[in-house]
Amino acid sequence: LIITLTTDFGLSDHFVGAMKGVILDILPEATIVDISHELTAFEVGEAAFIVSQTYPCFPKKTVHVVVVDPGVGTSRRPVLLEAAGQYFVGPDNGVFSIVTDHEKHKVREITATRYFRQPVSYTFHGRDIFAPVAAHLAGGVPPGRFGKPIDNYLRRQFETPQRSGKRTWTGTVLKIDRFGNLITNFRADQFPAVRERPFELWVGFEKIRRLVLNYAEGGFGEVFLIEGSAGFLEVASNQGSAAKLLGVGVGAPAELTLY
Amino acid sequence: LIITLTTDFGLSDHFVGAMKGVILDILPEATIVDISHELTAFEVGEAAFIVSQTYPCFPKKTVHVVVVDPGVGTSRRPVLLEAAGQYFVGPDNGVFSIVTDHEKHKVREITATRYFRQPVSYTFHGRDIFAPVAAHLAGGVPPGRFGKPIDNYLRRQFETPQRSGKRTWTGTVLKIDRFGNLITNFRADQFPAVRERPFELWVGFEKIRRLVLNYAEGGFGEVFLIEGSAGFLEVASNQGSAAKLLGVGVGAPAELTLY
Amino acid sequence: LIITLTTDFGLSDHFVGAMKGVILDILPEATIVDISHELTAFEVGEAAFIVSQTYPCFPKKTVHVVVVDPGVGTSRRPVLLEAAGQYFVGPDNGVFSIVTDHEKHKVREITATRYFRQPVSYTFHGRDIFAPVAAHLAGGVPPGRFGKPIDNYLRRQFETPQRSGKRTWTGTVLKIDRFGNLITNFRADQFPAVRERPFELWVGFEKIRRLVLNYAEGGFGEVFLIEGSAGFLEVASNQGSAAKLLGVGVGAPAELTLY
Repeated sequence: LIITLTTDFGLSDHFVGAMKGVILDILPEATIVDISHELTAFEVGEAAFIVSQTYPCFPKKTVHVVVVDPGVGTSRRPVLLEAAGQYFVGPDNGVFSIVTDHEKHKVREITATRYFRQPVSYTFHGRDIFAPVAAHLAGGVPPGRFGKPIDNYLRRQFETPQRSGKRTWTGTVLKIDRFGNLITNFRADQFPAVRERPFELWVGFEKIRRLVLNYAEGGFGEVFLIEGSAGFLEVASNQGSAAKLLGVGVGAPAELTLY
Repeated sequence: LIITLTTDFGLSDHFVGAMKGVILDILPEATIVDISHELTAFEVGEAAFIVSQTYPCFPKKTVHVVVVDPGVGTSRRPVLLEAAGQYFVGPDNGVFSIVTDHEKHKVREITATRYFRQPVSYTFHGRDIFAPVAAHLAGGVPPGRFGKPIDNYLRRQFETPQRSGKRTWTGTVLKIDRFGNLITNFRADQFPAVRERPFELWVGFEKIRRLVLNYAEGGFGEVFLIEGSAGFLEVASNQGSAAKLLGVGVGAPAELTLY
Repeated sequence: LIITLTTDFGLSDHFVGAMKGVILDILPEATIVDISHELTAFEVGEAAFIVSQTYPCFPKKTVHVVVVDPGVGTSRRPVLLEAAGQYFVGPDNGVFSIVTDHEKHKVREITATRYFRQPVSYTFHGRDIFAPVAAHLAGGVPPGRFGKPIDNYLRRQFETPQRSGKRTWTGTVLKIDRFGNLITNFRADQFPAVRERPFELWVGFEKIRRLVLNYAEGGFGEVFLIEGSAGFLEVASNQGSAAKLLGVGVGAPAELTLY
């Protein structure tokens, strides 16, 4: 009876506490797991990335609640996704796109208002819709009770590197982690050639030519490439922030040439 | 056996971890729920607001521990509040005033030192008094065992809007949330007229005349009024920070005129 | 079945969520306790301090996972420490030195790769080694199964004050807490004379001569000495930051003279 929470609500307001209370009021034996509440406000893409990196670690039947929801209170629908033997509850804004890209899945529109907290506010569906639905779902209510399957849910296309020359691909920086590592959208298993052949990766004004196995292998102040634990090529530095050293942010272009 | 924690201890020190250890040492089966540890240091009013917004979501018998405690180690008393079928443990500094304003209640001074962690420090009652008392209480020790009822507990008067003209009320900004929304102290259900009649709300140098249902209904860069999920009128902006746009902070005056 | 987590992973990435998933996948009934994820990146000494302040509050059999690990992916070993009836899992980089200084203990090198998550990445042993080992350990696998005892584990010497004159000791600032209190490395129980005799403590450009019992006893803006709840002498101020008032940081010298 595991319910995870991933939001952009921060940790200094009452939002997260209210959601936890609603869940425990319905399902006192729930194990609530905080994934993150410090996601960048309104950044659906960042939330999609975090979800994609965490759900594979969780057991079957886990319910993942994701609330990064700039359209709260509008006609955007609440959805329930079944994939990988787990459940995902959140707004229909593309936040589950990386999951649906990789897993067999079924998406339902959540319409069964009897599982909502009443009255439903226009601005806090985390408390009024997603938390109570997750609690009922984890407690054993079958998915079909919450609403009918839909096909026209929103799928957001997250960028994959584009071939831009004979030996060149143009990608981007997907995410910068706490340590300043730049996670690119080059999947390590799709570019295994960097292990064996000379390459150049341009990011910002820097040309990176060295792949190392772990951070400590790099020199201090050096910026290098690494096959990151998230499955992507990362630009990193040993105990330093590659993001600061290169002066680049999320969305910066990254151009890879293989020789 | 739910115990919630609301503190200004931050997340980079040992304080919160120590409290959790003390609780689990006494009551290993406790479900500990982090509400927030990022409250503004020493701001009893902010803590009172967070408590008031979260306890209604929790089930009966929940024990809420609140430690925002500038007077730790002085003669200020530890108190145990019973209200709404739940328990509240913390310093007698007014932090539970919004709860006692709205619920039938009984307040006890906590005097039973046998439930304290010994020796009691002068600077960390969260670990030495409030955490162990909460654990024993959640574990089934009756409230009466901790101390006798008192009447002279501290009640802080949180501001309510004052009538300042025939059609005018002067209130204030209670809280600014993570998204920059200004939560005023105008309760939405006490000023339903804003739904139907023209109004003006002055905050900072801005005059707000439009009430919308949800954030996305407002234009980008527009500042508007909304009936917030906390039950108060909020000044907000669509995916922007009203606080930054208006340049105002907690305690700023807000003047409402109904026509 | 309590497992605590202390890391420098921050709260805006997927790292902590992934570790929790791995633990719950192996041991769904685990009680996972967040100690802190906001430790200064790579600061082994700070992590050692936090661990030393929290483990004494926890019950026997608790498993503490500590991941502040600048050497991840190198030849630095993963270790399992048994001390105080509890378990500690983390990198062999001295992070448990304060525990081993104070408790009878046994240290094992973790070599049983069958308890690891496969494949083991070079950059995220929190997810791939420490989390699964902690879950198996909490679930009942005997410590001996994870590897053989070693003697040559890394012990970091945390500074203790040095005698620098007939009546003078030179120490340092160990940690600055959220409130700006300077926690020195003078143990309160080793310098009880400050309670009874005149003293001078030089920190930054300030000479402190007054010991108070609790923060509120000091004047606003005054900087004074206090016997802190962590067992050390602390330089503090009443509802103000001593660190800001004195302009000093971690590692600043502190010179105590007893008269």
